[in-house]
This record gives sequence, structure tokens and C-alpha cells, in this order.
Amino acid sequence: VIALDAMGGDFAPRVAVEGAIKAAQRGISVCLFGDENILLVLLEKTDRLWHTLPISLEHCTQVIEMGDDPSRSVLKKESSSLVRAFKAVRDKKALACVSAGNSGASLVAATLLLGRAPHVLRPAIGDFIPTKSGSIFCIDLGANTDPKPEYILQFAQMGDVYVTMTKNIHTPRIALLSNGAEPYKGSITIKQSYSLLKESGLNFIGNVEARNIFDCNADIVVCDGFAGNVMLKAIQGTVDIVLYWLQQEINVSWRNKLAALVGRSMFTALKHKTDYAQAGGALLLGVQEPCIIAHGCSNAKSIENALVFAYHVAQERFIALFNQQVAALFEQKKMNASLMPQKIRSIFGER
Amino acid sequence: VIALDAMGGDFAPRVAVEGAIKAAQRGISVCLFGDENILLVLLEKTDRLWHTLPISLEHCTQVIEMGDDPSRSVLKKESSSLVRAFKAVRDKKALACVSAGNSGASLVAATLLLGRAPHVLRPAIGDFIPTKSGSIFCIDLGANTDPKPEYILQFAQMGDVYVTMTKNIHTPRIALLSNGAEPYKGSITIKQSYSLLKESGLNFIGNVEARNIFDCNADIVVCDGFAGNVMLKAIQGTVDIVLYWLQQEINVSWRNKLAALVGRSMFTALKHKTDYAQAGGALLLGVQEPCIIAHGCSNAKSIENALVFAYHVAQERFIALFNQQVAALFEQKKMNASLMPQKIRSIFGER
Repeated sequence: VIALDAMGGDFAPRVAVEGAIKAAQRGISVCLFGDENILLVLLEKTDRLWHTLPISLEHCTQVIEMGDDPSRSVLKKESSSLVRAFKAVRDKKALACVSAGNSGASLVAATLLLGRAPHVLRPAIGDFIPTKSGSIFCIDLGANTDPKPEYILQFAQMGDVYVTMTKNIHTPRIALLSNGAEPYKGSITIKQSYSLLKESGLNFIGNVEARNIFDCNADIVVCDGFAGNVMLKAIQGTVDIVLYWLQQEINVSWRNKLAALVGRSMFTALKHKTDYAQAGGALLLGVQEPCIIAHGCSNAKSIENALVFAYHVAQERFIALFNQQVAALFEQKKMNASLMPQKIRSIFGER
Repeated sequence: VIALDAMGGDFAPRVAVEGAIKAAQRGISVCLFGDENILLVLLEKTDRLWHTLPISLEHCTQVIEMGDDPSRSVLKKESSSLVRAFKAVRDKKALACVSAGNSGASLVAATLLLGRAPHVLRPAIGDFIPTKSGSIFCIDLGANTDPKPEYILQFAQMGDVYVTMTKNIHTPRIALLSNGAEPYKGSITIKQSYSLLKESGLNFIGNVEARNIFDCNADIVVCDGFAGNVMLKAIQGTVDIVLYWLQQEINVSWRNKLAALVGRSMFTALKHKTDYAQAGGALLLGVQEPCIIAHGCSNAKSIENALVFAYHVAQERFIALFNQQVAALFEQKKMNASLMPQKIRSIFGER
């Protein structure tokens, strides 16, 4: 069963209920966490036959709001839908959890309740962004707003394992998000991260600007969470406004309206290609159990997709395998270091 | 006369020469700084009658490359086209300068050779971005990658004066770029800036996410230069890829090609609306003389527009007026502070 925080998100709980019903119709067991009274009404309204679907309910008396302080709310609102959904995973009552609510609170709950994977300093949000030639994996997209360079190195290592596992690319090419391609570009943190990545043994190809991520030759772009989040949201906002301007132009004249009619499959395809709701949500990497952080603005389709994604992640035991390989990558570094002859080692550290 | 660093930019010196000729044809005097031998060939090739235009040449033996370290190259390459163009403005031989070259070097040259305006801690790059309802002024777009909160407060103050002067909006609404609308969102620097802005007396309306800058109700968005640059470039890259995908869809079928033909004025209008080359470049704010930083990827049209912009900035004595008003805004704060009764002041600082 997948635990869904039904009260989290801009359009919750309506879209949570609708998404859960659609996922359940595809055979996925979903447990809704939230206000039973509200959820029952919505379930009845959406599908009278919902009893026949693999849907269950857990009544929660509290809600973590978008404006709540993440750490404080997770500690204080123990009976909230978000905390209860994470606890269900911790207590092995659910295989994975999904929340479109306060993403900071999801991060805190994941770290406190599910626990960090071995050696991982900070969990990170990673996701693919479509490009000219396919897609690029971006990590971190917002979990860490003030990362240390050591965290950014780990994001790159986690990205390396993720892309290797999911795209079967060996030694994927890794770029670092900066304000210019030159090595001297970037904030202090980014410059220090550049040095760490260069010495990491990863296939690091240097800095990349945000305007080039759609046609650079990297498989992964590593970001500090603040800039990564700004980039992701700037992309989403720009897609929206370009489509809005296109629609405006269509409305300008009958000729344009005719063009839109003739080319309607083209416009549908473009909208489909740029629809970020399709993605559903991003998997939180670096924690012990599967947890999907969905967009705050998720619609029913996004929630459905997030639930389907969570189901497959759980089914394939992806997180356990991923954490194993990440640990191996981290430990290999340590093993390499310990393979140095004792005599030489003493020169470096044991004076 | 406007000084143009003819060797700076991805497509220099060709686009610099072409842009200069077009600006000169509109009556603007341009002095090209660069390798005389190369520039003369290009001038002849572009327009044989260039002698009849108000174009002059200053031979420079060095070039600051995109990969050069900004501070070091400005200090060492004294005979470079970039440094010479800035020196011409310092020595009152030119009214303004334009460079599409190494923007870090332009910033260093502007600070060292032109000097900071009174009370300004750090110059910043500001520019308008088109939105649903008009445009929004974004500052800083990349001059300061590790700004202190005090710098960000000054960016807001400079933005306030700029928008008041250029759009005649009194007490413009100011938002702060963050990874969420809530006050607790953001990097440490952004959170501290939030507090400063709240107490500043400016019309501060809170945080804004990058996805909402196109339809938020702010006139100005203040950014740390690193995130601001990432946002700007993500917008540019996304516009490019959406248009690329649209073109791909057009090529899919004859039906779509027909739609594109019928609606070609619509596609032209969309491309025009999203053409960032139109902008030309951004005015550097917080220095003593006019200096336009053009995009590295500038084409001839961008250079032409940057020269026209520089001409108007110089003609209207904009920078002098702007610096006066910014100083007045800063000093008003100081005056407010100094209006406190002496007795009370001693309690705070004179223990």
C-alpha cells in the first residue's frame, strides 16, 4: 500500500482523492491520510463505487499548512496527515509515501522519521528535465538551500548512481550549474564544489549555464538546492508564459485561429511535451525508504502519476538497491584511500 | 561618442562591426576599440561607405577572453579593447561604453576605472523581463554571486529609483526571489535580506518564486546575483527549447506545415516577443558613468540596440540623475537616523 498525504498541496484534498481513485483503478493500493469527514464526501462524489477499489482511510486531525515552519510543524503536529503518512512507512504499514504538501516539512519528516541512508550527509531532490536529445537529471532541486561543497559532491555521486541505474549509462557526464561555463564562475560554494568534483573520480565535465542545460552534453546537472529550485521554477514559468503568448496570438485573428485549428495536434503535442504535471513528483534521494515529493500545484493527474511512480519504486525495491550502490561508491573512496601504502600515508596525515 | 569593445562577445568582432554600422546609420557616433587590421577589413566588407558614417577606430593590441580571470585580466591587459573602452569613458573621450565580452571583467573595469556611485556598496545589473501584464525589473542579474544582505537591500533601493524614474511608478512593489513565497523560505542570505527589506520603508511585498515572476503583482524582483543569473538564463534557454519543439512539431506533417504557413504572422510575433536579443544589454547600476553590459551571445541587432540604449542614457544624463536620487534615498535613511535625540542615541551606540 502507498501512503498519500491527502491534505497537502494547493488543490488538496480534491485532487488527492481524484488521483488516488485513478491510481486505485490501475490496481494500486492507496491509503489516504486526512480528515475522514471531508475525504468520505469527496470519495462518494468522485466515484460511488470507490469501496470496490483498494482504497483505505486513516483519520488525521491536523494539517501542516504551506506557511508552517517545516521543522517546528513536524515536531508539533504529530497527528497531521503528512507526519502520519511518513510514520506509516517507518512502521512498515506502507511501502512508500507521497505528499504534495509543504516540501520542507516532507524533507524534515523523511530525515527524522525514515532516516538518512548510510554515509549520506543530506538528502536531495532529483528529477529529469526534458532536453533536445532526451533528458537531463538535475539534483538538488530544492531540498538544501545552503549546501556545503561536500553535500554537492554527494549529490553528484547520488546522481551518478541514479542515472546509471535508471538509464544504464556508465560513468554519466556530470556538469555543475553556475553563472558561466568558465571554472572561475560561480558563488564561493560553487567554486569549491568545482574543485571537489574535479578530484572526485566522477566524469565531471565542468560548469554549465542554465540556458544551456537543454543542449549541453551532460547526463546530470548538479545544483545547489536554491539555484536548482530557481532554475526549475523559471523553466516551468517560462513554458507557461510562452504557451500563454501563443494562445494570445491565436486569438488575434481568424487566420491565426484557423492555423490553430489545422495544427491542433501540433499544439496538443507541444502542450503534452511541456506538461510538468505529467512527472508527478520527484523521488527524495538519500533516505532509507521511498518518499515522493509532488509539486505543490499538483493536479489529479500528477497525484496519480506520483502514486504509480511510488508503487514501482517500492515494487522494484529501488531505494534499497540505490542506497547499497551509493554506499559502495562512498566506501570505495574510503577503500582506495586505505589502499595507499602505510609509509606514504604517514607523510600526509600521521605526523 | 559611444565606446564599443569590438573584440568582446561570442561572435565578435563581426557582430560588433555590423551593429556599429547600423547604429551609425541612425546617427550615433561610435568608436570601435579593437584590432585595427581586422576591424578595417570587416568595415570594408560590411559597408564600403563606412567612411561617411560617424565611426572611428582605436587600435588595441590585447583582448580579454571569456575564460580570463576578471580582476587579473583588467589589471594586466591594460591595452585590451575592454579596458581601453572603459578608460575612454573615464577620460571623458566617450560618453558611455558597451561590451559584450567577459562580463566579470566589465564589472571590475567599471568599478576600478569609472568608480562606484556615492554610498553604493556594489554595482548591480538590472533589466526588465517581459511579463503577462508588461514587464518586471530584475536586479541583480549576475554582478554579485555572493552578495551580503546589505547589498541586496541596496539593489532594491536602486531598483526602486530606476523603476520610479523609468516607468513613473511611485513606491513600486518589490518582491524578493526565493524558493517559495513563505517568509521562512530561502538561503540564509535571502532570509536575512527579507528582514532588511521588511524594515526598509520600501514597498516590499514578500518573496516570489521564479515560476510566478511573469504574473506576480510586483514591479521589481530583487535577486542575489547568482540565482538571478540562473533565473534569467533558464528563461532564455526555455524560450529557445519551446520554440525548437514547436518547430519540430511543425516539421512532423504537411498538415502542421500548412498550419504554420497560415499562421506565420503568429509565429513571427511569438518569436519577436520572446527575442531577448532585442534588449541589447543591461545598464550597470551603481557606477559613476554609463556602461552597458551586452549578452555574450549578442548578434548585430543586439549590439545596435545596446549602442542606441547607451546613446539615450548618455543624452538624458540618466546615470548622474539616477545616482543623485539613489544618494538622496540613502541619505534620507541616514538623516532619519541622525534625527534621533542625542540622549537616546547614546543608549544604542555610545556606551
